[in-house]
Amino acid sequence: MDDRDADPDITADFDPDADRLREECGVFGIFGHPDAAAITALGLHALQHRGQEAAGIVSYDGKRFNSERRMGMVGDTFSKASTIERLPGDRAIGHVRYSTTGETILRNVQPLFAELDSGGFAVAHNGNLTNGLTLRRELIRAGAIYQSTSDTEVVLHLVARSRKHAVVDRFIEALRQLEGAYAFVALSNKILIGARDPLGIRPLVLGQLDGHYILASETCALDIIGAHFIRDVENGEIVVISEDGLESIKPFPPQTARPCIFEYIYFARPDSIVHGRAVYDVRKEMGAQLARENPIEADVVVPVPDSGVPAAIGYARASGIPFELGIIRNHYVGRTFIQPTQTVRELGVRMKHSANRAVVAGKRIILLDDSIVRGTTSVKIVQMMRDAGAKEVHFRISSPPITHPDYYGIDTPQRDKLLAATHSLEEMRSWIGADSLAFLSVDGIYRAMGEAGRDAQRPQFTDHCFTGDYPTTLTDLNGKDIRAQLSLLAETG
Amino acid sequence: MDDRDADPDITADFDPDADRLREECGVFGIFGHPDAAAITALGLHALQHRGQEAAGIVSYDGKRFNSERRMGMVGDTFSKASTIERLPGDRAIGHVRYSTTGETILRNVQPLFAELDSGGFAVAHNGNLTNGLTLRRELIRAGAIYQSTSDTEVVLHLVARSRKHAVVDRFIEALRQLEGAYAFVALSNKILIGARDPLGIRPLVLGQLDGHYILASETCALDIIGAHFIRDVENGEIVVISEDGLESIKPFPPQTARPCIFEYIYFARPDSIVHGRAVYDVRKEMGAQLARENPIEADVVVPVPDSGVPAAIGYARASGIPFELGIIRNHYVGRTFIQPTQTVRELGVRMKHSANRAVVAGKRIILLDDSIVRGTTSVKIVQMMRDAGAKEVHFRISSPPITHPDYYGIDTPQRDKLLAATHSLEEMRSWIGADSLAFLSVDGIYRAMGEAGRDAQRPQFTDHCFTGDYPTTLTDLNGKDIRAQLSLLAETG
Amino acid sequence: MDDRDADPDITADFDPDADRLREECGVFGIFGHPDAAAITALGLHALQHRGQEAAGIVSYDGKRFNSERRMGMVGDTFSKASTIERLPGDRAIGHVRYSTTGETILRNVQPLFAELDSGGFAVAHNGNLTNGLTLRRELIRAGAIYQSTSDTEVVLHLVARSRKHAVVDRFIEALRQLEGAYAFVALSNKILIGARDPLGIRPLVLGQLDGHYILASETCALDIIGAHFIRDVENGEIVVISEDGLESIKPFPPQTARPCIFEYIYFARPDSIVHGRAVYDVRKEMGAQLARENPIEADVVVPVPDSGVPAAIGYARASGIPFELGIIRNHYVGRTFIQPTQTVRELGVRMKHSANRAVVAGKRIILLDDSIVRGTTSVKIVQMMRDAGAKEVHFRISSPPITHPDYYGIDTPQRDKLLAATHSLEEMRSWIGADSLAFLSVDGIYRAMGEAGRDAQRPQFTDHCFTGDYPTTLTDLNGKDIRAQLSLLAETG
Amino acid sequence: MDDRDADPDITADFDPDADRLREECGVFGIFGHPDAAAITALGLHALQHRGQEAAGIVSYDGKRFNSERRMGMVGDTFSKASTIERLPGDRAIGHVRYSTTGETILRNVQPLFAELDSGGFAVAHNGNLTNGLTLRRELIRAGAIYQSTSDTEVVLHLVARSRKHAVVDRFIEALRQLEGAYAFVALSNKILIGARDPLGIRPLVLGQLDGHYILASETCALDIIGAHFIRDVENGEIVVISEDGLESIKPFPPQTARPCIFEYIYFARPDSIVHGRAVYDVRKEMGAQLARENPIEADVVVPVPDSGVPAAIGYARASGIPFELGIIRNHYVGRTFIQPTQTVRELGVRMKHSANRAVVAGKRIILLDDSIVRGTTSVKIVQMMRDAGAKEVHFRISSPPITHPDYYGIDTPQRDKLLAATHSLEEMRSWIGADSLAFLSVDGIYRAMGEAGRDAQRPQFTDHCFTGDYPTTLTDLNGKDIRAQLSLLAETG
Repeated sequence: MDDRDADPDITADFDPDADRLREECGVFGIFGHPDAAAITALGLHALQHRGQEAAGIVSYDGKRFNSERRMGMVGDTFSKASTIERLPGDRAIGHVRYSTTGETILRNVQPLFAELDSGGFAVAHNGNLTNGLTLRRELIRAGAIYQSTSDTEVVLHLVARSRKHAVVDRFIEALRQLEGAYAFVALSNKILIGARDPLGIRPLVLGQLDGHYILASETCALDIIGAHFIRDVENGEIVVISEDGLESIKPFPPQTARPCIFEYIYFARPDSIVHGRAVYDVRKEMGAQLARENPIEADVVVPVPDSGVPAAIGYARASGIPFELGIIRNHYVGRTFIQPTQTVRELGVRMKHSANRAVVAGKRIILLDDSIVRGTTSVKIVQMMRDAGAKEVHFRISSPPITHPDYYGIDTPQRDKLLAATHSLEEMRSWIGADSLAFLSVDGIYRAMGEAGRDAQRPQFTDHCFTGDYPTTLTDLNGKDIRAQLSLLAETG
Repeated sequence: MDDRDADPDITADFDPDADRLREECGVFGIFGHPDAAAITALGLHALQHRGQEAAGIVSYDGKRFNSERRMGMVGDTFSKASTIERLPGDRAIGHVRYSTTGETILRNVQPLFAELDSGGFAVAHNGNLTNGLTLRRELIRAGAIYQSTSDTEVVLHLVARSRKHAVVDRFIEALRQLEGAYAFVALSNKILIGARDPLGIRPLVLGQLDGHYILASETCALDIIGAHFIRDVENGEIVVISEDGLESIKPFPPQTARPCIFEYIYFARPDSIVHGRAVYDVRKEMGAQLARENPIEADVVVPVPDSGVPAAIGYARASGIPFELGIIRNHYVGRTFIQPTQTVRELGVRMKHSANRAVVAGKRIILLDDSIVRGTTSVKIVQMMRDAGAKEVHFRISSPPITHPDYYGIDTPQRDKLLAATHSLEEMRSWIGADSLAFLSVDGIYRAMGEAGRDAQRPQFTDHCFTGDYPTTLTDLNGKDIRAQLSLLAETG
Repeated sequence: MDDRDADPDITADFDPDADRLREECGVFGIFGHPDAAAITALGLHALQHRGQEAAGIVSYDGKRFNSERRMGMVGDTFSKASTIERLPGDRAIGHVRYSTTGETILRNVQPLFAELDSGGFAVAHNGNLTNGLTLRRELIRAGAIYQSTSDTEVVLHLVARSRKHAVVDRFIEALRQLEGAYAFVALSNKILIGARDPLGIRPLVLGQLDGHYILASETCALDIIGAHFIRDVENGEIVVISEDGLESIKPFPPQTARPCIFEYIYFARPDSIVHGRAVYDVRKEMGAQLARENPIEADVVVPVPDSGVPAAIGYARASGIPFELGIIRNHYVGRTFIQPTQTVRELGVRMKHSANRAVVAGKRIILLDDSIVRGTTSVKIVQMMRDAGAKEVHFRISSPPITHPDYYGIDTPQRDKLLAATHSLEEMRSWIGADSLAFLSVDGIYRAMGEAGRDAQRPQFTDHCFTGDYPTTLTDLNGKDIRAQLSLLAETG
Repeated sequence: MDDRDADPDITADFDPDADRLREECGVFGIFGHPDAAAITALGLHALQHRGQEAAGIVSYDGKRFNSERRMGMVGDTFSKASTIERLPGDRAIGHVRYSTTGETILRNVQPLFAELDSGGFAVAHNGNLTNGLTLRRELIRAGAIYQSTSDTEVVLHLVARSRKHAVVDRFIEALRQLEGAYAFVALSNKILIGARDPLGIRPLVLGQLDGHYILASETCALDIIGAHFIRDVENGEIVVISEDGLESIKPFPPQTARPCIFEYIYFARPDSIVHGRAVYDVRKEMGAQLARENPIEADVVVPVPDSGVPAAIGYARASGIPFELGIIRNHYVGRTFIQPTQTVRELGVRMKHSANRAVVAGKRIILLDDSIVRGTTSVKIVQMMRDAGAKEVHFRISSPPITHPDYYGIDTPQRDKLLAATHSLEEMRSWIGADSLAFLSVDGIYRAMGEAGRDAQRPQFTDHCFTGDYPTTLTDLNGKDIRAQLSLLAETG
């Protein structure tokens, strides 16, 4: 195989993060706190790793809903006092976004808002609806006018058209028509709502600050403001927070939870606790498990920064091989990159990372990363180790091969772009250029999670990316040409 | 009367244009020209005097509708090639906006767009619906979700919910439910539509460039691109332009046209031809008529620039008193003003205009303006003449006293803010500080238009600002508290 | 002659102001007023017509000199309170700039500043030194480091290197080495200085506000703040303003003043009084004189706006032919222009002006402008009149033909680009496409100024653009290749 | 001691990097490469850790010097092709800046440039002159005009005033007058110069790319573009690079080198090689040495990220105590921070870092940082560990106590702000709130560098921050009031 020669980009700069799966979103909500918008901004900042393209906050001040939605990072867009001052009120919801469906333009940035006859209603969504396009088409046929291309907007229209009286009943009626994965936070003029899909694919936790309830995608968003964690919102649970306190509603038939395993592998922040498991510890254990499954002699364990670090620490400890920073990350690269000339491009410039020759030269290195998607940056990072004088490069991945795309809120390439979907292990090793390549096994990852292994009858996690076992029907995917043209409108700004 | 002393602003800078009525909008559309968006931008630039707060263009390229909507001036926002390049296609509509209803935020900027089951539909509106809020409330009750606070959006929802098949039939069904004033341009994937309300209150003309039809609020938008004028769209007429040519539809019972007289007094550009009358000539004739109605001895005729100039030329010629530029306009003032300190404020700085002492000092001057709304700047401009040494200041207004607010697309203050609604002529003169004050009579203005006088039975123009004679019912105004809270959402950006 | 066909630009948009001479600068200074910087900003705003590319203010607060220099208009750049607050102190000087020598980059924006061993020294300059490059070369040879490419900086270095003790003596020593035209305002930690060259080519007036002295290029900068005019600074006079009052110094041998005649023709604002003459009245008289010198039958007198208006009023009155606004200026064009496609360009779009057909069609028009430089826009404006239906176009210019470039602070093209330098009157008429063409005579312009005619022995004005009679030696121009490379450094921002 | 209670900021957010010493600058130069400016931009990007406030590049294209200087990060300011295109030529020098003397305003951003009679001359400086102010005063007295408040400008004036003929001789004449620390790169129209002060306090290395010489502050700037390292420029050496190759000049009496020890402790990037020592290895060895000097029982070694990581790895390995990421750094914090309300401030929000409870709770932790300056953030980081449940916090510093300020290009607070200058070890421990506190000894740090210990007679490094042993005279510091007022001019923009 020499596809590598065909890759025009192979010697140019690379970003290890460019070949990871990306999460769609993070959500946050708070009820009753005088600094609701400021706290929401802080919570979203802690959830920034779940979406860096845009962010939005809607607050309610007893008279009006106030909305600020912006392209870019929370730390840049919600850092000014003047922005927060435009969001008065003691209740707010917020959203950070990386888009999976819908273009990333301002009108798609959440929370989305609708004026119902009963008052305003704002909603923010982490996840993806697998029948969103089908519902959209039906609603448009019935005269609905969409303001966005986001699949989330379908919820607004279903709520607006519901004939129920109470907002929470209208919302539940809407949820019953949805298929797919969701963690919602929603705000009306009376209540804050949190909702998780029947399988609990996407995470949502409940916390409290000075007696005021908080909803957030991860516990790290509680930690940043010193709030305490109460519990995970359960799969299929709707929590309704009002001045009368918290009410839990379970409108769906009971099912066993099946949370997304990728929260542990890559999405969640290492200091978050997801379903009772410390993410940092799980990742170290994935590394340790990998060392046990695939022992090899080497001089140093080198993580691909930063996400490979915990697994590398676990691997190093389990194997007794020293952990070293063999790749240095340049902290001064933001979102802007130098566009060098062709001559400069041929230099193989590394803007974001550099090899630490003192660690790498003349060594047999175990290079540890958390996953391979397309494999494009793996090629480059292995080459960088060799350029710095590595004697051997043994590439180790602390999760199983990704063979199937996701439809529940993770941005995956189409199946034919997934390296492991089209290549054997040896083909992958050869293409990447490593001396050896090994992945953690599917049962291994379940073991790192504290399970005995995968329960094939009732899998404990949503793991279709490794197994092809999709937990829901996929209505849109099975419809004809439904993606043909999502929107007739192109608009910037 | 000494209200004047109570005006804290009285010695500060002033802008004569700050006390004029303001037009809501201008519209433009073209069908079939390869540079549709660029030509629309030029047409909107020529219509810039009709709305300076925001502008937008929607084009259709055979596959997608492309939309660019921006706050600010056309010359600033649509001047870049890159913006025009984002608007491909051979048909486009555009809009310039000064807001009367609806906040001036981006989501209110027109053209508004909806995706119908039959395809996209964009609409731009000059005018104001007097039952827009009533219809809005009904539609929200039926589950419609509004994307803006513009009264124009009601049309989109009525079209979306129509059960008719053809877009033009759905649009006509929508028009039948509207009350008030409108000149619409609309664009579907097949046709360009122009429509005027049954009384033809707001203007709309039809032109042609290289065989391609154009719709525009005024003829000056045809002149800028060298297009030729065909005719005014008639009151109550819908013109449908497609690849098959132009079709005229008249879905309303026939009525006599009653166009808004303020187009002649202030809104239309002096080089436009409105309903067969050259605006410049009409304004000169208003000045001449005023000279005949109110002769007085004086040394010079001084216009308040720039809108008072044609009437002043007419007055000077009719009276034989020399026309002089007694007030010099500073061309370098844009939309930004120096905010001086209190000390500086007391200097009575004049940033935008200055008296031309060589003309004014020691003279008896006839100061000519086109209208008085609140009168606040009249006080200042008369004072500026006195400060420059004028011996006498005779203030002459080339239109009748404004005593009633407008509800058809002109931004007027509430009735109790209209100087002429609450003050006698002598009270006005005294408050303004002029040696004499005179307005053109109502019959006088009709005479300047070439009529024998106002036909009280069937007035030839919409003139309720002078007469209180509103030409349609005012459903929203008569509804209860309907304006209480137009929108529950506050959003910037 | 058919050069016209060769002009690719001939049908495109045009800006009448694009073919006028341009002034280099305006200056302003005030001593002792608590709002010195705010007042300077207002004064510069009134002088904006003298330079729109950049502006700067330096204030002194008793301890530090504070400087703000910006590209762009005063109304945009000095309109914020925060900017003025960075300019504390009760004395300040300011400058507006259109560049003749030196690139327009921030380091060239005045006032320029130097730290002398005796304290700070800031200077602002209207005019041009005809030995600036020669002096620059000598100073660099002696180890001086230039911070700008402005000819004004030479003054700073001459002051810095002077061995005199008092700043005013060092400044006078510097002035003695200069040749050319200048009106300077300068600020040290003790004094405000104003200085005019020995012939008084560039203007400078002295005024007072609440007892505090003011220096300004024109009286309109006094009017805007309600200051009163005291007198012109005399040719060859240095005025030194300190806490002890005003001292006048005349260090040069006495000469008769010879101010630049172009201040009256085009540069000064119509409401300014220059050397005791009201500019507006002089311009009207130039028009009247032109009517007397070149009578012709016609239907209307049409000014090229806005600078042609006073002369057109004078012409109309003297000839008895009616004055009409046959060209309408679009007030909404700022500094940004739409860049149309080639197709659109061929439409002959007129962004900035439009013909007023109601006035022009079928008429014999006298088109009145103040000057012709290259003639490029004259061609277009005559064509615009014909396109609007003018039966005859008689082009009249209220000043003599410009045959020689300026070196004293007016931006003129090289001699071979001056239409009148290379074409006969008939050739000019033919090229411009007018039915007739006439200029005011040289004696005629002197008569309009109140003189009996030009005194060939001792001309009363600097008029070399019409006569080739340069009032000083031109050292740089006569040096060899001295302009070869003004600066070795190119820097933006 | 309870100063801590007096610190109003103690519970608020903190940035560990806020209490580190800061480097003044980094320099880069290349001669003969067609992409000189692009390569310089990349080199500066790799040196970004040496200065983040501003950056500049000057190139020479055979005719002109081209300069671009900007506030902000290289990755933001020099990332556009258009910026690089304004820097043509095959030779260039560049500079990144954190200011120690001179305000951070654009005119202080380097490279500085002067036009000499022999041509242009640009210079960039890392270091600080200890007689810069004294020389500045003398030069101003002699008529020099300064364009900046940077101490570097003195070099330009000394070169400009030198009577020598060749630029290199003029530059050497200038260097002879300087006292302090410097690594210079300079560019004339013929040559690229590199120079290090006689003690070699600040670093400068020589490399080569495709046969073209490169000068850079650190080897990491060679690595990013794949250039190879040749050698360090020696202390007191001037290297002159021209089309004829490289010439080495040693104009000073020979001295033993005495490079700054802080390059190893904090400034240099971990992947750089400084004077033959790998910085990463030295730092690990500092940690190991610290473990040997101060053994203590504990459960985990936690680095303060990111600069404490290598020493923590070394400490963990030497002590056998596990290395863990007990503090997580939020990568999404740029230069903008949320300004929370007082209520929010009291929450003790941590925007930039968070404790990893899974690692910290219930543990005895060794917290490892590289230095303590004021100690303000040490208080907060210890508190954060306790808030996360740490049982014991043993604070370990991998360098000696800082007791003296620097005057050679490192930004240190005044002596009375240095915690170790005014507090005993126990006082420091108590104030910081740790259970124990220990620093690496002075001899220990020399041992980590591979020395037997500090040679008191001829210290191998510049280490006055720990010892008070300043290697040069300090002329400015000993002069009277010389800092009284560095500049009379305040200017933004």
